[in-house]
Amino acid sequence: MIVCAHPEPKSLNGSLKDLAVSTLETAGHEVSVSDLYRMNWKTVVDASDHGPDASSPLKVALDAGRAFGAGTLTPDVLAEQEKPLWADTIIFQFPLWWYTMPAIFKGWVDRVFTHRFAYGVGEHSDTRYGERFGEGALAGRKDLLSVTAGGPKSHYAARGINGPIDDLLFPIHHGILYHPGIEVLPPFVLYGADRMTGGDYPQVAKAGDYPQVAKAWEQRLLTLESTEPIAFRRQNFGDHEIPSLHLKEGLEPAGRTGFGLHVRG
Amino acid sequence: MIVCAHPEPKSLNGSLKDLAVSTLETAGHEVSVSDLYRMNWKTVVDASDHGPDASSPLKVALDAGRAFGAGTLTPDVLAEQEKPLWADTIIFQFPLWWYTMPAIFKGWVDRVFTHRFAYGVGEHSDTRYGERFGEGALAGRKDLLSVTAGGPKSHYAARGINGPIDDLLFPIHHGILYHPGIEVLPPFVLYGADRMTGGDYPQVAKAGDYPQVAKAWEQRLLTLESTEPIAFRRQNFGDHEIPSLHLKEGLEPAGRTGFGLHVRG
Repeated sequence: MIVCAHPEPKSLNGSLKDLAVSTLETAGHEVSVSDLYRMNWKTVVDASDHGPDASSPLKVALDAGRAFGAGTLTPDVLAEQEKPLWADTIIFQFPLWWYTMPAIFKGWVDRVFTHRFAYGVGEHSDTRYGERFGEGALAGRKDLLSVTAGGPKSHYAARGINGPIDDLLFPIHHGILYHPGIEVLPPFVLYGADRMTGGDYPQVAKAGDYPQVAKAWEQRLLTLESTEPIAFRRQNFGDHEIPSLHLKEGLEPAGRTGFGLHVRG
Repeated sequence: MIVCAHPEPKSLNGSLKDLAVSTLETAGHEVSVSDLYRMNWKTVVDASDHGPDASSPLKVALDAGRAFGAGTLTPDVLAEQEKPLWADTIIFQFPLWWYTMPAIFKGWVDRVFTHRFAYGVGEHSDTRYGERFGEGALAGRKDLLSVTAGGPKSHYAARGINGPIDDLLFPIHHGILYHPGIEVLPPFVLYGADRMTGGDYPQVAKAGDYPQVAKAWEQRLLTLESTEPIAFRRQNFGDHEIPSLHLKEGLEPAGRTGFGLHVRG
């Protein structure tokens, strides 16, 4: 499954999406594409998403969860919930806008990853806080972010002014993908996309950069099955205090802090 | 200026927004509200945003920047660019959905914070990479995030399973707000919003939690002027190597890594 979020088909993102489809199909895979701009994807969560199960006043999580259970979510959302269940691998293709995903993509997450489907799954009590972070409806799937960034790579390095790319992507990798159980592959990030191109694929080709980019992307696509996912710590397997869900002391290498705590080894 | 992003006026977020308006007006301030759901805010960036300045193929950053320069952005975007210029303080009121802002709010950022207005400002060369991170069109303004989170506070602690709240908010604080020069106040975060309420303000009141919440929020609102902003490092004042924009070695306290590097002291 490929989810793509760029308004211009003839963009670098559009080109990478097309290349992913052709490369994977040539290698014998079935590919389903959710090209959000082409689908005119409804981006905002509101009462109309929950059909007859919308409360007044609206309770976003509860109403969506009840509609999920009753099978009364809207057809566009139901179709998007089916696709990651069907897929073994999911690719998210998007430009980094303001250090995260474009609004239309966040709206795919907000509307498709409903309560009872992607969160609020399993027992919630004083001794257990659901099946998530390594377990959940989408366990067994892998996801790869393919991201274009306008700035140069050095700005996203460990000491770079934007913050480290792994930390910027952590809320997506860990918070959105690993939460419902998806294993997360290391991202494919293209830096300097604006400087090469103004965001425009023909200009990349002209500048001579695109053939190399395409080759690297094909290489990643054809080795997805042998790529090790990021070793995020699972929630329900002994690494955390209950009920605080603090990571137990001493599990991490000395000096590690922040989001890095949630990666093993 | 208050920007609010919740579909239900009778929600905890709606109540906090209303309380902010009444509290600030009573204290003698003028308040402008952008209630994005009530405004039916157009959420996705596309060619129609750039009017006669849209290229084919579309180049999002360049076209928006040209339209900004020519004054041909759409009236809804122009109005929203005026408000933070007019304001001295901006409040963002939103629920944390999937560890970041709802799609409609990201769509406000994507469309309003255009090239040449909020980024791509000033000289870009080998020795200088724009006026940003402490300088820019919105320098002199302050912003406060007022955020509701479904999970309990411990999950967002330094060792909490979700990651530290300061790190989760860093891409907004530093990447979106500090980038065009806004000073960022420590956030007002309400945890356990779902557990109290199902997201519904009358239930909060019933549970007896809301009066205390309201009191804490009024207290924050009435002390905004004396609250110290987060001490993010400025880009163009000697802390960074040129042109890599790596933070110079040795400026931070021992053991500090990740996003924390970008805070002084």
